[in-house]
Amino acid sequence: MDRARLQPVRLALLGCGTVGEGVVRLLRSSAAMLEQKLGAPLLLAGVADRSLKPNPAIGLERTMITRDAAALVARDDIDIVVELFGGLEPARGLILQALRTGKDVVTANKALLAEHGAEIFGAAAVAGRAVGLEASVGGGIPIMRTLREALAGDRQRAVYGIVNGTCNSILSTMTERGTEFADALAEAQRSGLAEADPTLDIDGHDAAHKLCLLATLAFGVSLKPRQVHTEGIRRVTLADIAYARELGYAVKLLAIAKDDAGQIEARVHPTMIHTRHLLAGVGGAFNAIYVNSEALGASMYYGRGAGMMPTATAVLADILEIARHRLAASRSGAPPLGYPFAMVMPARVKPMDDVLCEYYLRFTARDKPGVLGTIASVLGRHQISIASVIQQERGVETTVPVIMRTHQARERNLRRALAAISRHKMVERAPAFIRIEEEL
Amino acid sequence: MDRARLQPVRLALLGCGTVGEGVVRLLRSSAAMLEQKLGAPLLLAGVADRSLKPNPAIGLERTMITRDAAALVARDDIDIVVELFGGLEPARGLILQALRTGKDVVTANKALLAEHGAEIFGAAAVAGRAVGLEASVGGGIPIMRTLREALAGDRQRAVYGIVNGTCNSILSTMTERGTEFADALAEAQRSGLAEADPTLDIDGHDAAHKLCLLATLAFGVSLKPRQVHTEGIRRVTLADIAYARELGYAVKLLAIAKDDAGQIEARVHPTMIHTRHLLAGVGGAFNAIYVNSEALGASMYYGRGAGMMPTATAVLADILEIARHRLAASRSGAPPLGYPFAMVMPARVKPMDDVLCEYYLRFTARDKPGVLGTIASVLGRHQISIASVIQQERGVETTVPVIMRTHQARERNLRRALAAISRHKMVERAPAFIRIEEEL
Repeated sequence: MDRARLQPVRLALLGCGTVGEGVVRLLRSSAAMLEQKLGAPLLLAGVADRSLKPNPAIGLERTMITRDAAALVARDDIDIVVELFGGLEPARGLILQALRTGKDVVTANKALLAEHGAEIFGAAAVAGRAVGLEASVGGGIPIMRTLREALAGDRQRAVYGIVNGTCNSILSTMTERGTEFADALAEAQRSGLAEADPTLDIDGHDAAHKLCLLATLAFGVSLKPRQVHTEGIRRVTLADIAYARELGYAVKLLAIAKDDAGQIEARVHPTMIHTRHLLAGVGGAFNAIYVNSEALGASMYYGRGAGMMPTATAVLADILEIARHRLAASRSGAPPLGYPFAMVMPARVKPMDDVLCEYYLRFTARDKPGVLGTIASVLGRHQISIASVIQQERGVETTVPVIMRTHQARERNLRRALAAISRHKMVERAPAFIRIEEEL
Repeated sequence: MDRARLQPVRLALLGCGTVGEGVVRLLRSSAAMLEQKLGAPLLLAGVADRSLKPNPAIGLERTMITRDAAALVARDDIDIVVELFGGLEPARGLILQALRTGKDVVTANKALLAEHGAEIFGAAAVAGRAVGLEASVGGGIPIMRTLREALAGDRQRAVYGIVNGTCNSILSTMTERGTEFADALAEAQRSGLAEADPTLDIDGHDAAHKLCLLATLAFGVSLKPRQVHTEGIRRVTLADIAYARELGYAVKLLAIAKDDAGQIEARVHPTMIHTRHLLAGVGGAFNAIYVNSEALGASMYYGRGAGMMPTATAVLADILEIARHRLAASRSGAPPLGYPFAMVMPARVKPMDDVLCEYYLRFTARDKPGVLGTIASVLGRHQISIASVIQQERGVETTVPVIMRTHQARERNLRRALAAISRHKMVERAPAFIRIEEEL
């Protein structure tokens, strides 16, 4: 394995925000180690960024920075383009330009890969180039290479991800300190954990993008964000979290994909899981992906899902792997999606109506005799049977919460039953429900 | 990435015990998927096993099996030798023979790699061949490729492993059901989780072997089992587990390696960790490796650490990766140890006496006034300060347990203090102690 010192592998960085700065720092602080491992230096040849601000502390000179990303990508001396702009354009065009001109690409852009993955991986396959995507899901957690390589000889049955640190952090704050959702969100915004416009995170869209990539790597199918049933955490209340605990559950925003005999179930929503489950112990901004495989059984991968340095380590891992291939002038690694691109077919998605779940239900009912019986009989008419009930003592209030846990039921039936119960005058406000993953 | 159908990659299997049978099963059940991913079929060309018993259920014909492993390894048509004999010889000789004759090797043999790694990886480097070692630590958990590739751009500071399922299972049984060690061991033996001679597992030697490999991949140094301070779980009592819980800790057998400014700390022993730590939630025969890295921070990898199919998935992952390289007639992957072999130097090991820990101490003392003061003053003389004390109500017994948790102290001082206290006539029996990993 000893080899003569080779020519440097030259990198172009598109975007020098948080993660970009982390990559520059790591390239600098680990330079000697990276060169030892690779047998050649990794060289930052140029940076494209709107702000032309140099950063001498990390060795980023003004002369290295340009606003013209396309010109940087076009340069002959670039080997690997590291795309950290995020968003759809110009990232998409620049990645395609890079692949068509013989560069390899590393990206953390889950939104782009989820929406335009077919185009990008197709272009990479045609060009015989690599697309490193480790940083796009789970920050520094090596879930992409694990699914692509470590679990490659096995069949994945289900993937359960805590993949949005903002949501997990807010739910942790609500659970541990009894803070209301709005206050927990405001706190997350103040600490920089949530964006000023938190929609992408809070409403589950970011998790849905990541789920598309997880499902592609796990099952070898392509999946679009609009095919993922997506619900966010806005409707989770402190009351729900307290009742969940009473029933032995924690509430997490899970991104769930299952392969049911070739039909793919794909959903993002608040989920109750057993408090003793390992995923329930994943607190704060941490992420974890729990995978159920045919031969291996359960496995879990845990770590920091965002942030400057954690995400930069994932980018570096991809750079290193691709640099090895370039130095060997050979592509003998696994294709980016595990399967050859031509074999990745669109997912056959199970309609949400057909999904089977257990449910936690909370009704706000007028405190009158017979209300429990009425609710139970509507549920029964829709083939939903009740596993347990919590009914509070009658007090001075004119309404009481009625809490139920159901046995497994079909989503369509649940939806219809809740609509029927909502119309009932005994029930005030729309019933609240949270799905339970009992098998997890 | 589309390619014409290529010649099969041909495998020789040395040993068809539990894991071997798993590999044969997986090669058969996943044949079509593996061929899709690889672009060529994987073919089991021959099996060496003492028992010549065919197994038609998994497609293993009598004609495929030989007792002459050396002749099988010598065959020209073999590409990859999968060594699952275990033990030092003949595994060592056969692996060297395979490498010298141009075959790549996949092995699950931690004892061999821990003892003779330098010889084997050296031979692989000279021959330009690969040694897949994923299955040697953590069964189906992809910890080897994670350290080698995913965390390759980062520096690892510490690795904490629950890497022996037998010990973890026994400790779980003791903790959850209050079963005495001897009974929990007998139960594990009856269920096949522990060997008839359980020494290798129970006394920590298997974990020490695995720690050598973890440290090598994490820090780029070589480490021998005799350099690992190794204690097993025989001396853990139900009383210790109960007091641990009272103090907020769980007891686990941890394999710990830390890089302290180039000095490697390497130890296997029963360890108290916070009950809320993720590692404390790793129950039964499951394994987990918790890694602390400079840029990434904490990450954890969890799954089945043993068993037919889980370990077989790790073997398959290595086979698939190496087969890709053979088909591309190129070796552009990472070297087996992450660093080029020539750069892996012997570890500079920190003497156990210099290790800093917090300690749980249990004294069995005569129930006389002043005993606490006496113990405390001996500890004080050895620079050990006490963080908390549990002293039981005086009862009808003539001895009482005195439980202490210390602040951080040096192992040498602790050892000397305990020896001094043991000689005291107020103290009956030798004091019990368990190290606490407070920073974890």
